Amino acid sequence: MAQESSRRIVLLLEYDGSSYAGSQYQPNARTIQSALETAIEKTTGDWTRAAFAGRTDAGVHARGQVASFLTESRLDAGTLQRALNAWLPPDIVVLAATETAANHDVRRHARARHYRYLIENRAARPTLERGGVWHVSRPLDAAAMEQAAGLLQGTRDFRAFAGPLESEGASTVRDLHCFSVQRRGTRLTCDLVANAFLPHQVRRMVGALVEVGKGKMRPDEYEALLEGPLSSAGPAAPAQGLYLMRVQYEPPLFDEQVAVRHPV
Amino acid sequence: MAQESSRRIVLLLEYDGSSYAGSQYQPNARTIQSALETAIEKTTGDWTRAAFAGRTDAGVHARGQVASFLTESRLDAGTLQRALNAWLPPDIVVLAATETAANHDVRRHARARHYRYLIENRAARPTLERGGVWHVSRPLDAAAMEQAAGLLQGTRDFRAFAGPLESEGASTVRDLHCFSVQRRGTRLTCDLVANAFLPHQVRRMVGALVEVGKGKMRPDEYEALLEGPLSSAGPAAPAQGLYLMRVQYEPPLFDEQVAVRHPV
Repeated sequence: MAQESSRRIVLLLEYDGSSYAGSQYQPNARTIQSALETAIEKTTGDWTRAAFAGRTDAGVHARGQVASFLTESRLDAGTLQRALNAWLPPDIVVLAATETAANHDVRRHARARHYRYLIENRAARPTLERGGVWHVSRPLDAAAMEQAAGLLQGTRDFRAFAGPLESEGASTVRDLHCFSVQRRGTRLTCDLVANAFLPHQVRRMVGALVEVGKGKMRPDEYEALLEGPLSSAGPAAPAQGLYLMRVQYEPPLFDEQVAVRHPV
Repeated sequence: MAQESSRRIVLLLEYDGSSYAGSQYQPNARTIQSALETAIEKTTGDWTRAAFAGRTDAGVHARGQVASFLTESRLDAGTLQRALNAWLPPDIVVLAATETAANHDVRRHARARHYRYLIENRAARPTLERGGVWHVSRPLDAAAMEQAAGLLQGTRDFRAFAGPLESEGASTVRDLHCFSVQRRGTRLTCDLVANAFLPHQVRRMVGALVEVGKGKMRPDEYEALLEGPLSSAGPAAPAQGLYLMRVQYEPPLFDEQVAVRHPV
């Protein structure tokens, strides 16, 4: 239990996940959580656990991850933000910080998550974006992908697209508010918004969607993957093309101007 | 002199310049030219000099650099492209290759160059784009910058914005076809198109333009910088935000689809 005097600070985080074994703590691995907790300790003098709104896998990036921690520190949120940024490594930054109710739970209270998946669709391998996109050299039919993606929107059982689940028997039904595909030049941007996602769901949904883009699967066959058993659909797209863009709360935790920085 | 049988191959190159001392050969330094010449030697078995359309400084990137070389190889351009890409390091790639007249000069025959400069204008330092943008934390007035930039368009003497010149006494007059500034969220994109640029000209023009964005200089004062002596205007913006986007030829050397891949 938090002490009476503990304050909960929530952080809006951006990171390049290339050098990390994911967001969540793992023994003997470099994780976003351990980097953040180290920076918090250096800033406040106290060791505390940080909680994350979305779990990102090894190599997955974030433009709007939300994390929170309890602290006895009397420093205001802006000062904490600047101090954390001074201690954090160059590939992690706090975009905004604010104080919230001590019992706020960034994971449970999140209303929706927005993930983006970037595909570089050209013959030549990427150079400037090489750690941030999935390179697919075979030409993709973005219109077919967009059509197939639209078929999965709604309240559906996404078990087929789930990797190993954290708790057996838990529901695999999710509300997929939006799944869109947009082409601009050689870049395909896949945007997915849902109340929540199953482990590996985005990467498996995009991985199978690329099969549609290659003409190996029809949009109706893509939708029919939903009927398969747990973890039957895929393959999973590589981690490096995936970005956690935004976690939505009601009321919002952060100024919209800060949270929505990177339009498509 | 090229032998009768020599063929000239022109290459469209993309590279992340972060780890290079620039495009041009320098003894004991890692340059784009030496990386390319090494790949050509491994592909064709012969050592040859590569020529570049635009000289990029240390840390400057390219999305559409043009290079050419003479070869005795009988391999077709597509095969050469694939072989070069197999030998080139991960931060350099050949986007397209074609054969042209043996006396074609990628530098002299270029009609126009398009450079882009990216500024990330927000309080927090960049993470995902940390090697590819200039971070300016103080809010910039993009409208004032756009106005000032427009004043420099036309056929002007840009000596004030030039770094050390390659040949003394050469003309410092250039045709600046376009100089625009566009804001999208926290990202400012400066596009410059000219028949040719003086050394450091783009970086000094953008460096001084940011002073306008900060309110330290008025647009008319920015234009008046042109009246100063050689190298009097600046400061130069850092190399990492600069991209050589495109070199234009008449007729075009490459398919437009390949050459124009990255809209603003």
